[in-house]
Amino acid sequence: MTHQDTIVALATPSGAGAIAVIRLSGNEAMAFAENHFKSVSGKQLSKQATHTIHLGHIVDGDRTIDEVLVSIFKNPNSYTGEDVVEISCHGSQYIQQEIIQLMLRKGCRMATAGEFTLRAFLNGKLDLSQAEAVADLISSDNEASHQIAMQQMRGGFSSEIAKLRKELLNFASLIELELDFAEEDVEFADRTQFKDLVRRITFVLKRLIDSFAVGNVIKNGITVAIVGEPNVGKSTLLNALLNEERAIVSEIAGTTRDTIEDEISIGGIGFRFIDTAGIRETKDVVEGIGIKRTFEKINDSQVVVFLFDSHEIQNSEFRIQNYKNEIEKIKNKYPLKPLLIVANKVDKLDENQMKSIKTELPQIHFLSAKQGIGVDELKDKLLSFVNTGTLRNNDTIVTNSRHYDSLLKAFEEVDKVKYGLESGLSGDLLAIDIRQALYHFGEITGEITNDDLLGNIFANFCIGK
Amino acid sequence: MTHQDTIVALATPSGAGAIAVIRLSGNEAMAFAENHFKSVSGKQLSKQATHTIHLGHIVDGDRTIDEVLVSIFKNPNSYTGEDVVEISCHGSQYIQQEIIQLMLRKGCRMATAGEFTLRAFLNGKLDLSQAEAVADLISSDNEASHQIAMQQMRGGFSSEIAKLRKELLNFASLIELELDFAEEDVEFADRTQFKDLVRRITFVLKRLIDSFAVGNVIKNGITVAIVGEPNVGKSTLLNALLNEERAIVSEIAGTTRDTIEDEISIGGIGFRFIDTAGIRETKDVVEGIGIKRTFEKINDSQVVVFLFDSHEIQNSEFRIQNYKNEIEKIKNKYPLKPLLIVANKVDKLDENQMKSIKTELPQIHFLSAKQGIGVDELKDKLLSFVNTGTLRNNDTIVTNSRHYDSLLKAFEEVDKVKYGLESGLSGDLLAIDIRQALYHFGEITGEITNDDLLGNIFANFCIGK
Repeated sequence: MTHQDTIVALATPSGAGAIAVIRLSGNEAMAFAENHFKSVSGKQLSKQATHTIHLGHIVDGDRTIDEVLVSIFKNPNSYTGEDVVEISCHGSQYIQQEIIQLMLRKGCRMATAGEFTLRAFLNGKLDLSQAEAVADLISSDNEASHQIAMQQMRGGFSSEIAKLRKELLNFASLIELELDFAEEDVEFADRTQFKDLVRRITFVLKRLIDSFAVGNVIKNGITVAIVGEPNVGKSTLLNALLNEERAIVSEIAGTTRDTIEDEISIGGIGFRFIDTAGIRETKDVVEGIGIKRTFEKINDSQVVVFLFDSHEIQNSEFRIQNYKNEIEKIKNKYPLKPLLIVANKVDKLDENQMKSIKTELPQIHFLSAKQGIGVDELKDKLLSFVNTGTLRNNDTIVTNSRHYDSLLKAFEEVDKVKYGLESGLSGDLLAIDIRQALYHFGEITGEITNDDLLGNIFANFCIGK
Repeated sequence: MTHQDTIVALATPSGAGAIAVIRLSGNEAMAFAENHFKSVSGKQLSKQATHTIHLGHIVDGDRTIDEVLVSIFKNPNSYTGEDVVEISCHGSQYIQQEIIQLMLRKGCRMATAGEFTLRAFLNGKLDLSQAEAVADLISSDNEASHQIAMQQMRGGFSSEIAKLRKELLNFASLIELELDFAEEDVEFADRTQFKDLVRRITFVLKRLIDSFAVGNVIKNGITVAIVGEPNVGKSTLLNALLNEERAIVSEIAGTTRDTIEDEISIGGIGFRFIDTAGIRETKDVVEGIGIKRTFEKINDSQVVVFLFDSHEIQNSEFRIQNYKNEIEKIKNKYPLKPLLIVANKVDKLDENQMKSIKTELPQIHFLSAKQGIGVDELKDKLLSFVNTGTLRNNDTIVTNSRHYDSLLKAFEEVDKVKYGLESGLSGDLLAIDIRQALYHFGEITGEITNDDLLGNIFANFCIGK
């Protein structure tokens, strides 16, 4: 893979639509397009100004493939920093393929995943964390994750890191300068100022590291296991949660009719609900396997909703004590997992019945999924597990585990520096720790990088970005 | 629906991709975009030249929705002939929705299916048959249908019609002028020239009408029923046909595992293969229903392939006479339907066995789907049912049944004119038939139109085109 060659890919989603956009980038992008483009006005593409659009036909010899609009972006004023040509063609898959294959036959190379953005990074148009934010932006499906990705793409996070890195680098240079004058025992680096910087860095790093828990939730959502027998109203509850939100619902592929998996956006956070078969005691082997699976699903979830039919308690031999036993079992097995006990079909109960249930299970949340009673309150309770407080004051939030990892390492090194400063460590040893901290800062923004790392990052992109 | 308001729609395929394009068209398109676009360079959109691209952010108050490229096209130099703005945003579905919803909240209207192209037609950018070709172009999935749609979109077909219409209109005016001077008994319209024109029109119309059979096949493909028991190698045959072509395969929705439906492109023509259960005699009620269904499928197909396992004949009590009976049954029921008798698994036979089968069924086509023997020959035979000869000499081909209908009607009227001319019909009666012919010509290009017709045509478009 060389960054000299010209790459091509479909930039718009695959499938048929009104139009599709095919993107070329590289030294010869203009030439590739020009050789197969007949402008309606007869103008030569390469002689046109950057950021202009031209109507014409893509031709292969005598054959006209499509009437298109061609947009040209001249380096360095393009996404990749190279010459970029975007061909906006009619959106049939046949035409898309024909144009891409024509370019490939003529010597373009198919872009690898994320290669346009990789080139943007290599040409200094974006730093690494901004490039990563592009992928996050495209995959974000709710407001919170979108906002964080936008902020990161616009450099909010990395500019903060870059600023601290610069200050630290400055001190590092001064301390290394001291080493050159070791015999004279001078201090170029003001230790008080330096301690202050280290304190500030520690503070910022700690905040960023702490934000990861929230960031992770925002990016990946929260998994909620719903523990409950059939017919207690699981589907109705999901629909009730859903209907009151302008929400994104997706039936996750591979689910069978026996399990409901739905992702619902509540307050901008994605909640993924996993249906379980419940944990009612049984002697049946098959159902015993069901209980085992339920516990596995609880284990994989961040929140558990224990749902039962409050009406059933009044009308069957299955009494509340059995539910209490089941709840105890979950609590014993997962003492730290947030557990919401929810009694559905409350509309069928009178006040006395509600009171008697509440006596037995004080932490009960009553609702009627069908009537929409108590649904908003359940949402509030679910949201209370997410500390989104930090979101409001425009703080930077870390969502990327690679960044989190580098921040933790940087924090560790800065902590060593801090300890070294307090214990009067000699400049040469101090310098080593500072260099290590600088290294981890650089990993985040991409000033320190290697091919493996870049390969890993951009492999997660879609082709065409 | 007024054509004064500004419409918005997603122009690229739905789904997530690197980028997506949202299109606005109308008097206020520029204003809608400008109100929510912060250019990086600080320039005002509406003051920029047409066909230029601008980097900036789509904002809603304080909130930044995305970093985008905005392309502007000023009327009349746009697809619709109105002011058009294309917003090229990051391809997350969330961002696409946010931008479209922002525009809708601010007073844009969601475009109806095909409304951009409808406006292009109403503003005289395309005639009606060119507009229809846009939809054909987007749905074309093979070279032949693509070429025809391209030719039609570029006006090949309608310019021919428009030219004839103009000549005919000219004569009509002269004949109507004669009526004003009826007492003087003059002939402004040279009857010999007129007869010549009518002859030319008849010739062109006949060619266009005849081309519809081919055009229809190219556009809609050919349906082939494969009649054969399970295990005779139907799937293997389809795969063999497929593997040797750079083909488009699509498993049609709603097929069960019992039936195979595949569309395969052979020589640029789409062949849709429909699996049947065969017509082996049985006393079983369920299988009896299967036979009935097989005949229904044969009825709906244009070609029948009768496929059997030639090896089976040698090794089971089911002898060739049974197959001959089945083939006779199909021939009796559908005497005009092309029928290919294909013996699979020929690789397992020796020469004598082949000879004995050929004696019984002289029209047999031997192949081995597994070994790829005889597959190309089968393709040639399938293609021989399509007369694509007309395709080669760049003739215009009619693929649209609305055009076909109008052409037939025009032909009928022109024929009346021809008869009238030959029998010395008076000018006033001649004029009526000419007007009728002109009317049907005008229907094709859209000079004669009405809202119902336009509604029907554009309802088949996708939204965003």
